[in-house]
Amino acid sequence: MANTAACPGFKFGGLYCGIKKTQRNDLGLIVAEDEVPVAAVFTQNRVKAAPVKLSQKRVASGLARAIIVNSGNANACTGKRGMEDAEAMAHYAAKAIGCDDKRVLVASTGVIGQPLPIEPIVMATPRLVQIARGDGIEEFTRAIMTTDRFEKRSLHLLPLGPKTKARLVGVAKGAGMIAPNCATTLVFITTDAAVSKAYLKKALAEEIAVFNQHSVDGDTSTNDSVFLMASGAAKNKPIEGGDKGADFRKALRDVLAELADQIVRDGEGATHVATIEVMGAENADSAEKIARRIGSSPLVKTAMFGADPNWGRILAAIGNAGVDIDPDLIDIAVGEVEIVRAGVGVGGQSEQAAHEVMRRGEYTIRVHLHQGRGEGRHVTCDLTVDYVKLNADYRS
Amino acid sequence: MANTAACPGFKFGGLYCGIKKTQRNDLGLIVAEDEVPVAAVFTQNRVKAAPVKLSQKRVASGLARAIIVNSGNANACTGKRGMEDAEAMAHYAAKAIGCDDKRVLVASTGVIGQPLPIEPIVMATPRLVQIARGDGIEEFTRAIMTTDRFEKRSLHLLPLGPKTKARLVGVAKGAGMIAPNCATTLVFITTDAAVSKAYLKKALAEEIAVFNQHSVDGDTSTNDSVFLMASGAAKNKPIEGGDKGADFRKALRDVLAELADQIVRDGEGATHVATIEVMGAENADSAEKIARRIGSSPLVKTAMFGADPNWGRILAAIGNAGVDIDPDLIDIAVGEVEIVRAGVGVGGQSEQAAHEVMRRGEYTIRVHLHQGRGEGRHVTCDLTVDYVKLNADYRS
Repeated sequence: MANTAACPGFKFGGLYCGIKKTQRNDLGLIVAEDEVPVAAVFTQNRVKAAPVKLSQKRVASGLARAIIVNSGNANACTGKRGMEDAEAMAHYAAKAIGCDDKRVLVASTGVIGQPLPIEPIVMATPRLVQIARGDGIEEFTRAIMTTDRFEKRSLHLLPLGPKTKARLVGVAKGAGMIAPNCATTLVFITTDAAVSKAYLKKALAEEIAVFNQHSVDGDTSTNDSVFLMASGAAKNKPIEGGDKGADFRKALRDVLAELADQIVRDGEGATHVATIEVMGAENADSAEKIARRIGSSPLVKTAMFGADPNWGRILAAIGNAGVDIDPDLIDIAVGEVEIVRAGVGVGGQSEQAAHEVMRRGEYTIRVHLHQGRGEGRHVTCDLTVDYVKLNADYRS
Repeated sequence: MANTAACPGFKFGGLYCGIKKTQRNDLGLIVAEDEVPVAAVFTQNRVKAAPVKLSQKRVASGLARAIIVNSGNANACTGKRGMEDAEAMAHYAAKAIGCDDKRVLVASTGVIGQPLPIEPIVMATPRLVQIARGDGIEEFTRAIMTTDRFEKRSLHLLPLGPKTKARLVGVAKGAGMIAPNCATTLVFITTDAAVSKAYLKKALAEEIAVFNQHSVDGDTSTNDSVFLMASGAAKNKPIEGGDKGADFRKALRDVLAELADQIVRDGEGATHVATIEVMGAENADSAEKIARRIGSSPLVKTAMFGADPNWGRILAAIGNAGVDIDPDLIDIAVGEVEIVRAGVGVGGQSEQAAHEVMRRGEYTIRVHLHQGRGEGRHVTCDLTVDYVKLNADYRS
């Protein structure tokens, strides 16, 4: 990971306020020097946590000063009190920062259905605002983690002129995806580039697609949120499209893809990560559907866990994608090893070779449909005994 | 299970011909005294095994004399040779029976992608035809089993007159569903009632819905087939609709539901069976979607394994069904224990009580949306450590 310690125009903070049982950071803050353009996308789940509903309303203005986040409690399915708590969380942060409540966004992650312990949050907020600093991103990262086994950050540079570059700095939490485990995915991306409000919104709405090409278990949480803020500290002419817009979107796409990769790699109980590449589909949409279906099949994901190049299950998943295909044209390869040619197994020797590739724990499954030029991909992890054990534990 | 030993007008047979490694029955036959009306539904998977393609073509005539089935090999993804083998299987059965090839249907279940060992099948077929008898249904049932832990049969009676009743006898295999594990679901239903070709087709096409309210893992195999044959041995006036049609459909629905229940109960690795009942939806379609989504969520299914009344996951699954709902109106109960009222958890004591209900291993999860009068249901099993282990085993 490159040096991701800072993004000019923003301060980051994190501390332990008392939500988690273990004394790990559970409250984090990103605060800009002044109000700046912001964009966000939220969970498609119809059951939305209070902080999601509040942030969704506030982000409509396209402007924000800060985001306050807690882990250890999702403030989801908490009724009227949940919304009051989310508003209080933003209010006390706004008060300590000295800005309008409406310019503070909120995110929460953790257990569902328990009232948010608002008092320790309110108590700790002034100190959180005080300790936030330019290079506080590690404290912030730790403050948003729940079942994560490692910190997830990404830095990509955006060329602005011959000698100047802006930064895009992303931080994520989650051990699930799209499809995230109720543990929730939260993503915070900051950039010092100046970007117009409208373009920031458009860029995120479209580039989020790369993030959605990843999954762990196909469940979507009540709290998933992706935030993008642009400080303009790089003093460039605000990006509104054109070549600069394309460069910005490329950097944004790279940050999103890198964070999503890290989340799948940290998938609950995961021991394998596979990139499923589908080509030769009638169009990109069909290719995506097929890639996603392969990557979501419990039978394919358990076969991955066993390092079993079980191409019958891959073919069956392809056939279940709701896309017209001709099975007799399909080729399948694991890594560089072809295991199916024209819909029929190549043989035991190639399967043995594919098994060896899979034992490495990270590989590509390539499917060629030979029906057109559409391409799609999906990144997924295996379905393991530990996934079941982790998620079957009766909550204590 | 009631006495399911016979269905007048049909003979059943089963034997070991040499496909399976263990010396268990692997070849079965149902043969009618003469050609009779037949209907069938097949897998929606675009990748269809050769026997499915052949039977699908032949069933279009609405008439059949026999069905020959093997287990231990699915004859799927076997290219041109696969179709030749399926045709040969039917051909030698037709020859031994003394009928037209076109009147013999074929089904296969077992490993995908291996050529069907056609020689032992051909060699054993004359003997199979010879040993088939009216009360041979147990031998037949054993001949279609793969990973099944128990035999699956169902008998329901159809009143024809004051003193006469026809029988509907169903036999199934499968440890997966709709959604079946590649192990495949096969169902064979025979009745001695006389039913017109057209009505038999209509009844099966519509009543199959109850079967589709069940799932194990959401994967659909290349070989799933449900066959329904009516011998007319009961000598009633052929059923073509009306009250008699309604009675027939009721009996057919009962057989399908009972077989599907047995399949879920035998779900690979399953230790829990839950019936998810959704009521108060805007319409039946929305209710079904929600019930199915809850029953397919890996997080709900792992929570079941842990006997954890984790209603946050149930609410999140409801929110993911693609149906407009108001989370603040939702009630959820496990058995008779209410755990969520108006979108908010009832409390720890009720969760403890629900945990006790779940520990029994068989229960209802009731969801009331309070938005209308639509009802739907789905029967599902838990996602267990054994499911993963069973399906991750590298094929030997």
